Amino acid sequence: MSSSVRIALDVMGGDHGADVVLPGAEIALIRHPDIRFLLFGDAALIGRHLAARPKLAAVSEVFATEVVVQMDDKPSQALRRGRRVSSMWQAIDAVRMGKADCAVSAGNTGALMAMAKVNLKTMSGISRPAIACLWPTMRGESVVLDVGASIGASAQHLIDMAVMGAAMARIVFDIERPSVGLLNIGVEEIKGVEEVKDAAAALREADYPGLDYRGFVEGDDIGQGKVDVVVTEGFSGNIALKAAEGTAKQVAEFLRGAIQRSFMARIGYLFARGAFHALREKLDPRKSNGGVFLGLNGVVIKSHGGTDAEGFASAVDIGYDMVRYELLSRIAAGINGRPQASGSGAGADSGISDELQVIS
Amino acid sequence: MSSSVRIALDVMGGDHGADVVLPGAEIALIRHPDIRFLLFGDAALIGRHLAARPKLAAVSEVFATEVVVQMDDKPSQALRRGRRVSSMWQAIDAVRMGKADCAVSAGNTGALMAMAKVNLKTMSGISRPAIACLWPTMRGESVVLDVGASIGASAQHLIDMAVMGAAMARIVFDIERPSVGLLNIGVEEIKGVEEVKDAAAALREADYPGLDYRGFVEGDDIGQGKVDVVVTEGFSGNIALKAAEGTAKQVAEFLRGAIQRSFMARIGYLFARGAFHALREKLDPRKSNGGVFLGLNGVVIKSHGGTDAEGFASAVDIGYDMVRYELLSRIAAGINGRPQASGSGAGADSGISDELQVIS
Repeated sequence: MSSSVRIALDVMGGDHGADVVLPGAEIALIRHPDIRFLLFGDAALIGRHLAARPKLAAVSEVFATEVVVQMDDKPSQALRRGRRVSSMWQAIDAVRMGKADCAVSAGNTGALMAMAKVNLKTMSGISRPAIACLWPTMRGESVVLDVGASIGASAQHLIDMAVMGAAMARIVFDIERPSVGLLNIGVEEIKGVEEVKDAAAALREADYPGLDYRGFVEGDDIGQGKVDVVVTEGFSGNIALKAAEGTAKQVAEFLRGAIQRSFMARIGYLFARGAFHALREKLDPRKSNGGVFLGLNGVVIKSHGGTDAEGFASAVDIGYDMVRYELLSRIAAGINGRPQASGSGAGADSGISDELQVIS
Repeated sequence: MSSSVRIALDVMGGDHGADVVLPGAEIALIRHPDIRFLLFGDAALIGRHLAARPKLAAVSEVFATEVVVQMDDKPSQALRRGRRVSSMWQAIDAVRMGKADCAVSAGNTGALMAMAKVNLKTMSGISRPAIACLWPTMRGESVVLDVGASIGASAQHLIDMAVMGAAMARIVFDIERPSVGLLNIGVEEIKGVEEVKDAAAALREADYPGLDYRGFVEGDDIGQGKVDVVVTEGFSGNIALKAAEGTAKQVAEFLRGAIQRSFMARIGYLFARGAFHALREKLDPRKSNGGVFLGLNGVVIKSHGGTDAEGFASAVDIGYDMVRYELLSRIAAGINGRPQASGSGAGADSGISDELQVIS
């Protein structure tokens, strides 16, 4: 890593492309003046934007690409059409070639993960990548993974995610030994989560220095911030994340509706404006924007496709931190000496599991 | 069914036992004067309560039981200690013997499901039961199942849940052909949800008169009320439900905190009191209290263990409606001619799945 942090941007990704990516990059640059950008996309379009943003232009290099991965492209389609030639692929490729320290894209998740896997490959010792997000909690934030890279997980996958999630939490929360919980349901003696039980046994027994294993957590413990890192397989993780996001939006809409229906309440709103503003800040999904792909030979950050410049800047910030505080070497260190699963859910795939089915 | 609705109550169940169950029963009785109660538990204790509640006493028959299933008993423990002799078992047994039309308990979920399965058995044509809840949405409520009876589901289990959930939705929402969605994640081309895909194909192809299949829904679609019935396996369903409950609580706490921190906001609160009250009503978890066990030869309702009398009354209300509007015969009718799964996830268990492991 050079002294500056070199970030490759897929300028064409997301619902709004350059209109969000480039203003977002500029916001992140104000916070981190040591960023250098590699911009991949329509060169003429980028040129017009940079003409109006001289500070951004001064730290950016533009690389012309012809093909744009669409938001509804399937991973296989994206690879067929966009391999080597798309802005998304090229941004990732800059990481592979060591020209950039990380890539950030607001493009579609499946395509981005497929290209990142094909191009960067999974880290030695890790069988498959995961997507981690920052989840706002009563105590601050927690790292939650996997939120949708793959469905199902063997005990060893869950352990690997605990190690990777702890490495990320160490950076984000600046704590030496993050607390880790395995997501489970509270009903006893149900068959079918042998993988989770085996991972729990291995993590407890290992008393691994890199993380403080705290046992099972349930769905409502995530938002309470009971642990720094919550580990689960990607189907339930994705559904939990979206159910929580949907609920937060729903409560906000109920509140807005209730206030608008009454004149007195609208007056009350004027007095309580500051409190509502604080609530909005607290719930702002843009602040926790940025899914981190863990387990690849390179840092790749997925921004929400529909976010605005402020949200995209948060995704760039996360990428910056992951590079600056050396996510990859922390994960690599974590893999050495990590606990090993034994028992039914160990090692190879376990019925539930398997990874992205990329038809390349 | 007799002209009154006979409801068996596990008076000893839940965190507060008789202190919540009996006042709750009385609230439900005001709304449904045609209820008759069968009360199972400590006869002396119940007698003291009934002395102070003559209206409830007038419609109740007391059955003395000695054993109480504890909130932390495992299902196998509960069965060992409580089979035949506990208030929970006896309440269910009254349903089996045709002395009651339904049983309501605030006792522990795993024990209640185990006893209900062992005693009532699953309905002919249904391989295993599910737990359905009412989920508050932007449009009203939706039925969501399975929220924790078992982990994993074959395509046929998912189809059966669609049929059972639609039967319940027909009663609760009074609509002829409820819309149904299968919960899924938005990432394309991931291996591992063959069961969901196969169930989707069968439901779409069948164009079954009992329900209007609308395709996949994601976690954030549940709260939007996109469909009347959301079907998923019990692990992700339980986690989604708890993540959403946790988030609603979290947002409410943020709001309370923000208002208390500022004097102006507290004044605003006084003006907007009505709106906050409306919000609280809307989010009141007591109103949607009552998990319905579907797929058994009898109606069993699980109340939250920590609810109050108002919440327990809601669970009794749900039981009343399920009996009054003939849930069981609607499910039985639905099973005839329901779609059949074909393909990889069909029929027998499929790796992920299996049911409650009851060591009886």
